Amino acid sequence: MTFCLSENSPGPITSGAVAAGMPIAALPTPMLLIDKDKMAANIARMRAQLAGTGVIFRPHVKTAKAPDAIRALFDGATGPITVSTLKEARLFAEAGFDDIVYAVGIVPARIPDVLALADRGVAMRIILDEPGVAAEVAALVPAGQANIGILAEVDCDGHRSGVDPDGDALLRIGETLAARGLFAGVLTHAGGSYQCAGANAIAGHAELERAGLARAGERLRAAGLPCPVLSMGSTPTALFARSYAGMTEVRAGVYMFQDLVMAGIGVCAPGDIALSVLCSVIGYRPAAGQIVLDAGWMALSRDRGTAAQAVDQGYGLVADENGAIIDGMIVMGANQEHGLAGYRDGAPVDPARFPIGSRLRVLPNHACATGAQHDRYLLVDGGHVDAVWPRFSGW
Amino acid sequence: MTFCLSENSPGPITSGAVAAGMPIAALPTPMLLIDKDKMAANIARMRAQLAGTGVIFRPHVKTAKAPDAIRALFDGATGPITVSTLKEARLFAEAGFDDIVYAVGIVPARIPDVLALADRGVAMRIILDEPGVAAEVAALVPAGQANIGILAEVDCDGHRSGVDPDGDALLRIGETLAARGLFAGVLTHAGGSYQCAGANAIAGHAELERAGLARAGERLRAAGLPCPVLSMGSTPTALFARSYAGMTEVRAGVYMFQDLVMAGIGVCAPGDIALSVLCSVIGYRPAAGQIVLDAGWMALSRDRGTAAQAVDQGYGLVADENGAIIDGMIVMGANQEHGLAGYRDGAPVDPARFPIGSRLRVLPNHACATGAQHDRYLLVDGGHVDAVWPRFSGW
Repeated sequence: MTFCLSENSPGPITSGAVAAGMPIAALPTPMLLIDKDKMAANIARMRAQLAGTGVIFRPHVKTAKAPDAIRALFDGATGPITVSTLKEARLFAEAGFDDIVYAVGIVPARIPDVLALADRGVAMRIILDEPGVAAEVAALVPAGQANIGILAEVDCDGHRSGVDPDGDALLRIGETLAARGLFAGVLTHAGGSYQCAGANAIAGHAELERAGLARAGERLRAAGLPCPVLSMGSTPTALFARSYAGMTEVRAGVYMFQDLVMAGIGVCAPGDIALSVLCSVIGYRPAAGQIVLDAGWMALSRDRGTAAQAVDQGYGLVADENGAIIDGMIVMGANQEHGLAGYRDGAPVDPARFPIGSRLRVLPNHACATGAQHDRYLLVDGGHVDAVWPRFSGW
Repeated sequence: MTFCLSENSPGPITSGAVAAGMPIAALPTPMLLIDKDKMAANIARMRAQLAGTGVIFRPHVKTAKAPDAIRALFDGATGPITVSTLKEARLFAEAGFDDIVYAVGIVPARIPDVLALADRGVAMRIILDEPGVAAEVAALVPAGQANIGILAEVDCDGHRSGVDPDGDALLRIGETLAARGLFAGVLTHAGGSYQCAGANAIAGHAELERAGLARAGERLRAAGLPCPVLSMGSTPTALFARSYAGMTEVRAGVYMFQDLVMAGIGVCAPGDIALSVLCSVIGYRPAAGQIVLDAGWMALSRDRGTAAQAVDQGYGLVADENGAIIDGMIVMGANQEHGLAGYRDGAPVDPARFPIGSRLRVLPNHACATGAQHDRYLLVDGGHVDAVWPRFSGW
């Protein structure tokens, strides 16, 4: 049995058929929308931020997982990208993207898949943070395979993975890989920036990231090792860094859509969020003063990334069908296909304002997580569908 | 652009090709596994519980979303099912299931899709809890369409949706629909049972559910209305009810896999959980005493349903490659493609026991949510893949 994800639902009994030109009011729900103007503004903002810095921008496709969406970042062309899975690498390679950093620590069992991509002409950069793994991986790459380069993952902020920029493992990895002609430089991800609050704190974290990675590069060079690539990035640090000195490239993913977690730390305003889940009112809970939506956690994701922020947005902030935020209304509870929405201050929702079948949009806590619940984006522009962009999931 | 989900990854650069007969040790990760013996035991337990009661068992397919898995509940055949989306209804209808309850409140805009299924011979039962919606929906169903029946959703425990079993709206809905020959009875879901703890509390909640629904049926009949269907259900109440008196059918979904939320309220033991995510060790965090897995929230879901239970299982309980639970080890943190696992008591993980590339399994908090992150199940039996079962998502 095979299920095909395409612009239309599969099978002879079709529903949810959507196409460019349709009005939003005619769309089946739940449905994942991208506001074209807001996305364009988010893309323009990153371009302006990086203009004149000389760094390469290498978007992370793990947020969108849609070649059409990533082409929009390159004016319809392809460009250098970052991936979080080999499936992303394969599907983007098939879509013409041939310069890929796979930014999750490699294990030897994945090298055959990486080699298959390199053999097809894709420049593959992989990362690792263990000297033992470096030796194992180096032994698996055939001599003369120029399409594979290996970056040492560096940990500048204690976030997750990576070697200490000031430690010995960095140099051991560099030496092991350089001896085989495979060492390509260093990469870091300052995920700790998601815990910052405000422009100054984020800029400070960006400098921590930049300076740590630059120091790693200097130590490698001082040891006589090459370090052509210095790759930093996260949406907060890419947008708020005050210097990219010494860096060769910057990565970010969420920035093209933005989300409530980003708004919560001051990276954007809620009104900048381009992604939303269109849904329908399907019932009322008079005792709770709530309305019931057909967007539950299956459509919104279980992400509660704003729970620990100053403003807890529940499972998402509610906007009207046109995207205008309804002051103080959030999705307070979520079952699989039911969202329970109400006012943050406990004021009861007036059913007359929200008839059964009327439409709302929910802005996501976390664009990556909400996107992953859907198999397509509808790019919307002025109340109509401009394009249908398939997205994929899995590994 | 179209992406096809099949047993193998799409595109000419394949990876993750999996097939029956493969050893677990050779599988790509992350990968969603079903332990065949444990699932069989869970299925047998529900059969034993309902044996001799005379009620129809109508499994909820929203957990598995895989016709192959649901056929396993009917010894390879089809049977009556419950769905949470019209996509489930369509794809299961195509797979031969022709008796379907769509257990999410209907809105008039969805009636054409329901009619399309009914016209193909599928017995469709839909639910609603608003007298106004009942009138609207009744007007949309052509006279003589015998394949559509409408159930009044009843709220027995204040969980989410539904009319008061003792209120006036129930009778108004019944009258409106019976006048058009569309009224089929009552349905309730005691979702509050997920907050219970222990067999006695769950049995008490099941009786609340049963008695409330029976009372609704009696009131309808006393008013001269037909009430052929009385449908109750949830995994906890279906398994722990001490009486099903007056009920005609019982629904449950999670029970076939079970999960940590169910274990946390005493519905099962962690060792009964049939679903797990096979993953690889990809790194270490020495300062935190943790290992890094390639199962992050994308593979495990963001569900933190055990967070409010007596034992918080993080993002899942860790077992070895064969499914034996590793005492006290949980996934403590999750990024998109990284899981951070360690011992609950803070003891540091010994890297020598978990080499890079070695395999583990993570038991899920919530089977529905974890399943939704994957496009196939691998049924495993004694260390080998017994079958590959595609699953779908979306609406």
